[in-house]
Amino acid sequence: MGLRDEIREQPAAARRLIDEGREPIARIAAALREPPFDTIVIAARGTSDHAAVYAQYVFGVRHRVIVGLAAPSIGSVYGVEPRFAHSVVIGISQSGESPDVVGVIAAARGQGVPTIAITNSAGSPLARAAEHSIDLRAGPERAVAATKTYTAELLAVALLSASLSGDDAGLAAIDRLPDAIAAALETEADTERLASTRAGMAGCVVLGRGFEYATAREWALKLKELARLLADPYSAADFQHGPLALLEPGFPVFALAPSGASAPDLIALLGRLRDQFGVDLVVVSDRDDALALGAGLRLPPSIPDWLMPVVSIVPAQLFAYHLARARGQDPDSPRHIRKVTLTR
Amino acid sequence: MGLRDEIREQPAAARRLIDEGREPIARIAAALREPPFDTIVIAARGTSDHAAVYAQYVFGVRHRVIVGLAAPSIGSVYGVEPRFAHSVVIGISQSGESPDVVGVIAAARGQGVPTIAITNSAGSPLARAAEHSIDLRAGPERAVAATKTYTAELLAVALLSASLSGDDAGLAAIDRLPDAIAAALETEADTERLASTRAGMAGCVVLGRGFEYATAREWALKLKELARLLADPYSAADFQHGPLALLEPGFPVFALAPSGASAPDLIALLGRLRDQFGVDLVVVSDRDDALALGAGLRLPPSIPDWLMPVVSIVPAQLFAYHLARARGQDPDSPRHIRKVTLTR
Repeated sequence: MGLRDEIREQPAAARRLIDEGREPIARIAAALREPPFDTIVIAARGTSDHAAVYAQYVFGVRHRVIVGLAAPSIGSVYGVEPRFAHSVVIGISQSGESPDVVGVIAAARGQGVPTIAITNSAGSPLARAAEHSIDLRAGPERAVAATKTYTAELLAVALLSASLSGDDAGLAAIDRLPDAIAAALETEADTERLASTRAGMAGCVVLGRGFEYATAREWALKLKELARLLADPYSAADFQHGPLALLEPGFPVFALAPSGASAPDLIALLGRLRDQFGVDLVVVSDRDDALALGAGLRLPPSIPDWLMPVVSIVPAQLFAYHLARARGQDPDSPRHIRKVTLTR
Repeated sequence: MGLRDEIREQPAAARRLIDEGREPIARIAAALREPPFDTIVIAARGTSDHAAVYAQYVFGVRHRVIVGLAAPSIGSVYGVEPRFAHSVVIGISQSGESPDVVGVIAAARGQGVPTIAITNSAGSPLARAAEHSIDLRAGPERAVAATKTYTAELLAVALLSASLSGDDAGLAAIDRLPDAIAAALETEADTERLASTRAGMAGCVVLGRGFEYATAREWALKLKELARLLADPYSAADFQHGPLALLEPGFPVFALAPSGASAPDLIALLGRLRDQFGVDLVVVSDRDDALALGAGLRLPPSIPDWLMPVVSIVPAQLFAYHLARARGQDPDSPRHIRKVTLTR
């Protein structure tokens, strides 16, 4: 069992979480509805922090709730416990072991606010510290780079959102995601081909906006971890405030541009980057006009934009895997890093 | 008047903001104290977003308040207005013109929650949209890359924090910052020397933690804007969750490691990076043990850690300026970017 197997396990892992997790998550949502909360605070590190970024947009756009990403070091380094006031506090961690994330949840629970652990380890310190716990049921993840636990974390957030608002159409759309992930796996031959001709890259920029900003961050991390490529993720808006200076002909720009409210502006920006700067575009999208802008990786159609990050990361994972191999790196054991990182 | 002049104007700009802005900021703080607020939400882009990161730590550590960084696209792209509930909402923008940031403030004001503009343009749309406005008084900033308005934004946050808690010792320490910035300008010859021998770099990582995470983000942006160097900023904790894989002998790692609660762990990490991976370290610090780890840029002593980011960015700005020149770039007119970027 290596990284590629775990990437390919994602439809089954998603199916399991949806089938077995929907009811427990609905019970947590019911418990949260009374009394109502004002804000959501999320503590997470690394890949799980990108699931937190996804949650920021999901709860912001769908529930109009302000989501703060906790800076765990405020507790662990400065010894200060935030006043959580009328917040719900969520900790996300594959292993459930990072002491700084556990510390945020323990402090919040001590203040009597609702706490939720999202973790792949049901007996972990994080799960035990929280009032509520969502078990990701992804099965053991042995590769150092997280893949199936990332999509499971996103799915847990999506299920919680749909349950909170009694969104039956959303739940039905979630139920179709395992098939969509399977369809996205069929980009593998394309990812291998695109990666093989780009093995010599010195660096790249990864662009996404709105819901897909999380995907941009996670794709960039996978490129760094696996392919040892300096990859800089940006929201398409922040990118125009400065880093545009990096561009030159042939500079690699990877973009997530699926259908949705953020698509028109992003596609217009990508067109400008190609025409004015001659960048080398790789575009992940379900839209023909976006795919036609450069080398395309096609996503399955008809996925609501708020759920697409569960699917759009899959070609990105495969691309990073094949780029690692094309660059002579072993994607199953990235240099210098371990599966569980205990930071404080 | 070019970028270097504006960098060197910072002691005078800071002096002006402290002398003329302290009273108006104290009045805003007094207005915020009743009724009390639960959370702070900040909207900002680009360099100003790094001032928002600084504010996240300042209000978190010193006031125990959860600070959420608004995702402006939730309003501008998805058309959704967050419920600001018991928040104070702050917009930070040098020009005060970015429509997405103005939109967040206008929505918050419409909901009747306190709003504050922090801007260098007292008549700007942002200043007019907010209930309260802090004028940075930095004078016209003509270079595309923001420098003196960044330190002014940090100072405004620091003054607001000290006023909120009636922290006279903090105000006295703030009063000494213009001299400390002047002392930091004296690193210029060192920054020029260190930059000249590193002109060929293909990329780098910039590390900071806690209060200095904002400085790491801003240093990396300046390296991208001015020197066209792919620079990846990380909190020292997140860095260990993955990007460690990038390291190899001679890989450039720039670090902010001044005195304070975050120093011991960070200095230990930097020692490991040097000994195990043979990275090329450039360290900005007031501590001898940190400076001895690699090429050092010395900060003035006795600055409280929460105020050091106003000072520690100065050698970083100078380094980016001289690296740009060493790489044949014109730091006064970075390619492709304009002073005012209007994103929605």
